[in-house]
Amino acid sequence: MYKLNSYFCFMENIFTDEYFMKKALQEAYTAFDKDEIPVGAIVVINNRVIAKSHNLTELLNDVTAHAEMQAITASANFLGGKYLTNCTLYVTLEPCQMCAGALYWSQISKIVYGASDAQRGFTKMGTQLHPKTVVVSGVLEDECGELMKDFFKKKR
Amino acid sequence: MYKLNSYFCFMENIFTDEYFMKKALQEAYTAFDKDEIPVGAIVVINNRVIAKSHNLTELLNDVTAHAEMQAITASANFLGGKYLTNCTLYVTLEPCQMCAGALYWSQISKIVYGASDAQRGFTKMGTQLHPKTVVVSGVLEDECGELMKDFFKKKR
Repeated sequence: MYKLNSYFCFMENIFTDEYFMKKALQEAYTAFDKDEIPVGAIVVINNRVIAKSHNLTELLNDVTAHAEMQAITASANFLGGKYLTNCTLYVTLEPCQMCAGALYWSQISKIVYGASDAQRGFTKMGTQLHPKTVVVSGVLEDECGELMKDFFKKKR
Repeated sequence: MYKLNSYFCFMENIFTDEYFMKKALQEAYTAFDKDEIPVGAIVVINNRVIAKSHNLTELLNDVTAHAEMQAITASANFLGGKYLTNCTLYVTLEPCQMCAGALYWSQISKIVYGASDAQRGFTKMGTQLHPKTVVVSGVLEDECGELMKDFFKKKR
């Protein structure tokens, strides 16, 4: 009985915000390797990853190609509907006005982000999210933030 | 000489904001016919239309498929660069947070919109545009607004 309980405990604890943020971070590392501003995102529903993306603004020559925008479109394609009810977005950097505005329209249930963006993040900019959306910040904040700092250090 | 002058006057007056807004309105009518919220947009550089688009959120099942977002991506593709310097966006409805946020990143020179969106427009929402961007509002406002009203009347 003791063994069974501890097994279930283990099962429950695997799918933490940190677990999924690590997957978003892998996407951010891929962006870094492509010389893109290193932001990664994933979308999860019922502990299943349904979209993975990273920033591609340089490759696509397109300011709208943020990781979050691609993740929203990919998730909607996967779900066959445009509302991301019961979905959680994990993103390594706090979303900007554009991405927060898109998340507002998507009615996503939860947004989890890593590093804050004191200059252009949606909290500073006052962008409104959907009333249904829960926000969690600071998950693997140091690792997400360090990657950004390393990128801009490399660029100088 | 008199005739020549009046010819040049005519040439200068053709490319007014109303002239281009009518083209954006044509796009909005196309959206209306497809049962999409009727918003149309075009992007102009040196009096040349380089992008035309209309809202396709229903067809594409994608909240990011606003007319403006598509116009930004199409213009960048046309120009081969992601900044819309010297470009003007004509859009029949005031941009939302998402679209204004995308326009912020694009550094577009001018935004001309028709009808205001008192509920979800970027001015009400407080979305920040790029300091370089000039905004003109209310061009063919009545026609742009009537089309929206007709659409929602039809939907009821």
